[in-house]
Amino acid sequence: MAVKIFGHQNPDTDTITSAIVLADIETKLGNEAVATRLGEVGPETQYALDHFGVGAPELIEGVGEGDDVILVDHNEFQQSAKDIGQANILKVVDHHRIANFQTESPLYYRAEPVGCTATILHKMYKENDFEISREMAGLMLSAIISDTLLFKSPTTTDEDIAAARALQEIAGVDPDEYGIEMLKAGASTKDKSAESLVTADAKTFDMGPKTTRIAQINVVDVDEVLDRKPEITEAIHKEIETEGYDLFVLVVTNILESNSTVIALGSDAGIVEQAFDVSLDEDTALLEGVVSRKKQVVPNITKALG
Amino acid sequence: MAVKIFGHQNPDTDTITSAIVLADIETKLGNEAVATRLGEVGPETQYALDHFGVGAPELIEGVGEGDDVILVDHNEFQQSAKDIGQANILKVVDHHRIANFQTESPLYYRAEPVGCTATILHKMYKENDFEISREMAGLMLSAIISDTLLFKSPTTTDEDIAAARALQEIAGVDPDEYGIEMLKAGASTKDKSAESLVTADAKTFDMGPKTTRIAQINVVDVDEVLDRKPEITEAIHKEIETEGYDLFVLVVTNILESNSTVIALGSDAGIVEQAFDVSLDEDTALLEGVVSRKKQVVPNITKALG
Repeated sequence: MAVKIFGHQNPDTDTITSAIVLADIETKLGNEAVATRLGEVGPETQYALDHFGVGAPELIEGVGEGDDVILVDHNEFQQSAKDIGQANILKVVDHHRIANFQTESPLYYRAEPVGCTATILHKMYKENDFEISREMAGLMLSAIISDTLLFKSPTTTDEDIAAARALQEIAGVDPDEYGIEMLKAGASTKDKSAESLVTADAKTFDMGPKTTRIAQINVVDVDEVLDRKPEITEAIHKEIETEGYDLFVLVVTNILESNSTVIALGSDAGIVEQAFDVSLDEDTALLEGVVSRKKQVVPNITKALG
Repeated sequence: MAVKIFGHQNPDTDTITSAIVLADIETKLGNEAVATRLGEVGPETQYALDHFGVGAPELIEGVGEGDDVILVDHNEFQQSAKDIGQANILKVVDHHRIANFQTESPLYYRAEPVGCTATILHKMYKENDFEISREMAGLMLSAIISDTLLFKSPTTTDEDIAAARALQEIAGVDPDEYGIEMLKAGASTKDKSAESLVTADAKTFDMGPKTTRIAQINVVDVDEVLDRKPEITEAIHKEIETEGYDLFVLVVTNILESNSTVIALGSDAGIVEQAFDVSLDEDTALLEGVVSRKKQVVPNITKALG
């Protein structure tokens, strides 16, 4: 049976495209592998797939005991497929911290502290002297633009920029022009329900005894979200009640101005004031210069809770 | 402050030499790094260091809060430096399963399912186009010979063999001739106390609710150990009482005949019969063809306990 490759739940552009791209690399390595996904394809990702004429990976519900799998763009089991602990994890390619991850056997694990999984995948093509198609180059470039918010996020490294430069040549697009259009495609919240806004790109983090849920939305107009605060607050409270989170932070990131407005709820909401040295006004605060959940939001809250 | 590089507690040849070799690579990469160790250098490792004229790494007691560190040849915190959870882990280069490992930040993590850390380090020289000195080649070759028991262990991969071939040219030694002498240097138990035999190369494994300690000794004459069974049994019982292990397995591996005799003690000792389909006779059984703790002993016991 072909090895299933997938990224995290609530997939973003890096997760979806990395599954597709690594399946291409594995195939070139002579391994039978298929790209899959654990959730719906968002509009930003769909824009990239459509632009380069690539189909979405197959949706799977979970994994079975002993299934051979490869994880991209995540490792923490609570962000992965249902029953991941029973699967046989052959490989991981990721750019996040490592936590809540374990295997019974030795495996291939490649993580690098770069802004995007695609930057590592680009190296894998080069190391193996594999040709990169226009489609795969376009998907990797899209992932880098998405994860680095067009190179503005503090998670951006020189390696991401160098990879993007090499890839734009093959993909035949101007990253600034194409990138803004792609980000905008994912930045409209008008057609989205309050429930989908607080769940679409949400991740759970175990921080000591506390469970924190951090959701992020990229927008070009923050008021589009803040005008709907009552229904969004209600949707968050429902999540907190159902799942028992100690803290729920909705990070509304303005991708044009490179800052974020947060809505913080739950019994530990006050920790956000300490974490970012701000005052919450009706559960809301502006975080100047904050755009990265991984590099800014998670470490600051972890530290404040510690 | 220079980054501290170290392998696991109760260091073996791969752990000691990998710290030295990775410090050489880091230095070539322009990073300030120093090889360290968490325990005494054994006679096999000393033979290799002496043969290639390289000094032992500096002994450290533990790590401090916020220290920058790099782990080689291990990742599980219980096998690492005291207070490792408080250090800032920048990098890991390893060939074991991943468990009981977590970080707060993204890091460089490179694990491959090969027989020896040195095989991965050899690739790192090649990828970076760094020259390999006779000393570093000799240490890497020694590590591969040690971890694969001269290519006889089932952990041996084609990549280990290819790396060893390339390294023997640079090191200027015949691996069969040099290897047997090196393994023999580490295989004499006559000068060792019973306590040191059961602790020198011992690792703890959390297997569900059970804690298993597995110690391994390489010998050329099994009776050298079995003749001292009463005092060895006493030393193991003392370990079990002090540390609260549910199971203690001493694996006495005959490196010339490629099999192992085990002494199994503790409340869960019976699980060894099930794990290897053998009968314990006065706590002892011969395991035909078993030479690898990682690939044979740990997975079989984990499965039997599961």
